[in-house]
Amino acid sequence: MAHGNPSPSAAKLNSPVSLADIEYFSSTGAQVVSSNSPLDAKYNVDYFGKYFGDSEVILFPSSTEQVSKILAYCNKNAISVVTQGGNSGVAGGAIAQRGEIILNMRDMNKVRELDIISGVVIAEGGCILEDLDNHVREHGYIMPVDLGAKKKCMIGGNVSTSAGGLRYLRYGSMHGTVLGLEVVLPDGRILDALFTLKKDASGYDIKQLFIGAEGTLGVVTAVAVALAPKPKYAQIAVLGLKDFAKIQRAFVLARQNLGEIVSAFEFWEKRCNEIVVEHEIYPSPLNESHEFYVLIETRGSFARHDIEKMDMFLDCLRENELIDEERVFRNAEEMEQTWLFRAQMATAHGKCGCMHVYDFSLPSKYQHELLVAVKNHLQDAGLYGVEDAQVKDVTIFGHIGDDNIHLQVIAQEFGGTVEEAMDPWVYKWVGGHGGSVAAEHGLGAYKGQFLKHSKTPVVIETMKSLKQLLDPNNIMNPGKHISRA
Amino acid sequence: MAHGNPSPSAAKLNSPVSLADIEYFSSTGAQVVSSNSPLDAKYNVDYFGKYFGDSEVILFPSSTEQVSKILAYCNKNAISVVTQGGNSGVAGGAIAQRGEIILNMRDMNKVRELDIISGVVIAEGGCILEDLDNHVREHGYIMPVDLGAKKKCMIGGNVSTSAGGLRYLRYGSMHGTVLGLEVVLPDGRILDALFTLKKDASGYDIKQLFIGAEGTLGVVTAVAVALAPKPKYAQIAVLGLKDFAKIQRAFVLARQNLGEIVSAFEFWEKRCNEIVVEHEIYPSPLNESHEFYVLIETRGSFARHDIEKMDMFLDCLRENELIDEERVFRNAEEMEQTWLFRAQMATAHGKCGCMHVYDFSLPSKYQHELLVAVKNHLQDAGLYGVEDAQVKDVTIFGHIGDDNIHLQVIAQEFGGTVEEAMDPWVYKWVGGHGGSVAAEHGLGAYKGQFLKHSKTPVVIETMKSLKQLLDPNNIMNPGKHISRA
Repeated sequence: MAHGNPSPSAAKLNSPVSLADIEYFSSTGAQVVSSNSPLDAKYNVDYFGKYFGDSEVILFPSSTEQVSKILAYCNKNAISVVTQGGNSGVAGGAIAQRGEIILNMRDMNKVRELDIISGVVIAEGGCILEDLDNHVREHGYIMPVDLGAKKKCMIGGNVSTSAGGLRYLRYGSMHGTVLGLEVVLPDGRILDALFTLKKDASGYDIKQLFIGAEGTLGVVTAVAVALAPKPKYAQIAVLGLKDFAKIQRAFVLARQNLGEIVSAFEFWEKRCNEIVVEHEIYPSPLNESHEFYVLIETRGSFARHDIEKMDMFLDCLRENELIDEERVFRNAEEMEQTWLFRAQMATAHGKCGCMHVYDFSLPSKYQHELLVAVKNHLQDAGLYGVEDAQVKDVTIFGHIGDDNIHLQVIAQEFGGTVEEAMDPWVYKWVGGHGGSVAAEHGLGAYKGQFLKHSKTPVVIETMKSLKQLLDPNNIMNPGKHISRA
Repeated sequence: MAHGNPSPSAAKLNSPVSLADIEYFSSTGAQVVSSNSPLDAKYNVDYFGKYFGDSEVILFPSSTEQVSKILAYCNKNAISVVTQGGNSGVAGGAIAQRGEIILNMRDMNKVRELDIISGVVIAEGGCILEDLDNHVREHGYIMPVDLGAKKKCMIGGNVSTSAGGLRYLRYGSMHGTVLGLEVVLPDGRILDALFTLKKDASGYDIKQLFIGAEGTLGVVTAVAVALAPKPKYAQIAVLGLKDFAKIQRAFVLARQNLGEIVSAFEFWEKRCNEIVVEHEIYPSPLNESHEFYVLIETRGSFARHDIEKMDMFLDCLRENELIDEERVFRNAEEMEQTWLFRAQMATAHGKCGCMHVYDFSLPSKYQHELLVAVKNHLQDAGLYGVEDAQVKDVTIFGHIGDDNIHLQVIAQEFGGTVEEAMDPWVYKWVGGHGGSVAAEHGLGAYKGQFLKHSKTPVVIETMKSLKQLLDPNNIMNPGKHISRA
């Protein structure tokens, strides 16, 4: 089964787009591209080539007013809309699988305001994360969210998927760092909740609903973010360890010894390291081969203090016989190379074969157990560990301390027997061990059906009632997200 | 006008409570106290004696199931409910002004779970904040929220008012630190969103709606909170400064020099200091008298580093001629005394007279301007600065960096000419300067009417539609919060 095809129940519900519709869209001032065949693949295929769309119309609005006019019209005329940012998602959430029109946010890329005293930026939804980060760095700040996809992803998409990323441990969730949003509601009304104040307890915090809504409740046209101060000093240590339990002990020691300066604590296993070395241009950060690798980054305000803390921490790890090798990187170029190595991990897996990627939250005590369980399960199904097996690799890497783990099953094809063996088995396993079926990639086009394994019926009913309230005509990203729950 | 009286439009809408109702409530297992006259003042008067209730029935449930049965019954029989925690609120949100029954959470005070690896606590809504903090401290953690009212307030009330408090600057908002909630919805259904995972992007984050809802959408029966590690070392500096601009410069320098260890940055002005000295048992933390005072706290993982950072920071303040006096407190008892001095500020004001208290968010550049504007305005009205004036004192104190300021107008009576002169004038002034009419005390019984000065009609309409969706019979805290907007 190709993933480009939506489920049978997800037949086209929206009206076909007519010439009159196109004329109207053009009259708003938005750039309109339409054809009689599906658009360029860059708009109709997701990042890993798993989800395919068939949209023939794409709009590039350049103002909130244009988005407002477009949605009001679509709502009145039952035209479905998929909002698309950098199209770097891996769950199919921004792919138009039912011939919806695509609202691409590329041209809404202005920084509207940067308050350098309070450290708050107001940026339009189409600003690329890395561009924004570079901009605020010039004024002594950084964006609190940082992702492998930062060169491509847009802040509106980050908000819409409640992106977590690499430094969640330090800077926390978007529910805490996003101070305000401007959202065009499905009926075209502009919800100006673009507040910039840190504290505000006046009424329901409605902007929160759009964080993680994956474009099903409206279009995020602008975002106000509380920035973090640019650190004066950063350093990285990469560790080689023998087993997963040692990672957990190292994490507890890091919180005790490195305290408030820890800014990332990533881990990956042996095979992940090999896959990046095989498929990307970056050499391994360590000399030897290890069962597990950990990357710890600190960011602080005083180099000498930070160096002393890191040295003491590494002494402590050695004394406790937790590590077999370590390297510390304090030079900017080396640190960048090391982060690139980590950032290329997902992409490198994608080059190995057809990657079934799973993004779970799971209490850390069960994280390694999941890997073992999946391997055993696939082996029992005759799909792994035998000659010419359908599954070539099963790997995990993730963010310790965020409860977030990425599981990759690299197969010879998408869908098929591997998907049948894995789904819903793995979602049930995760739900049954206190996990969530989507940690930071979102539910997208496919995973909504598994939500019941980690959320109760009352929670799902309440979510559905909110969708019904805000998008009664179901024009925004229909058939995705909780619609499948 | 006494504040105990709701506005004319807020006549009793709920059914009177019958003997049969009382019998049903008792049958749920909840403790029931009822009489033919208003209950003890501790349940019917707010913290500063400004809002009065007339409830004759109070229920003390001890389980979520009991709350569920009670609400299902009330919803069916149109009985209105006010949920009450420690009754330490100052906006009247927990006062039953229309003869509603009170659901007091006192007996739901169990800690259900504490995961000492991940640092997450699950506590029932009636747990007193200080008790919870003491409990988690034994295991190496602290509660991220900390308030002057911590001996009295309950975690369910903290969530329901989106409490900010003293260390917001370091640990952030409840929208970031609350991982999950268990809420009984107005129809009695139990919304089990008691998640404990740090990252979770699977569907709408519906728990967020109840943070700051002030009991209008359901009853918060349990809370999962991401704890902060207990700091190994803390220190406090109190500074005396000549003007407000110097406070702002000191704050920027603190972020640069103390960086990640700053945990609080409070300010107050001369008159606040005098009022605490006059009305409480604590002496001034500084020897001289100053126009402004600042309290800076650091919390870190390494004493020697933290002390060095603080000393360098104070050198820097002196070099820049920002301060006239400073004292550093590093002894536990002295630090506690200093915090108590700050924590008693609101209470001390309450002892001076009838305190009209305003809790605003305001960009810091306008904070001092507000004080000047209020004094001038009251003077122009003949209410301040003349002999035997109706207004005795006008003061501000607040949390720098959170945009949060508390304005006190101490009058000879509540309501009356002072209220007429201040309202809505001051709310318009704040809204017109980019502020919010409620930062951390909530809208409560009175301030909803001013929400329009800081929120747009679409935002208010959306809030109202959420209330209508979740509480169609309007039984939860009717006539408060956004109902007055």
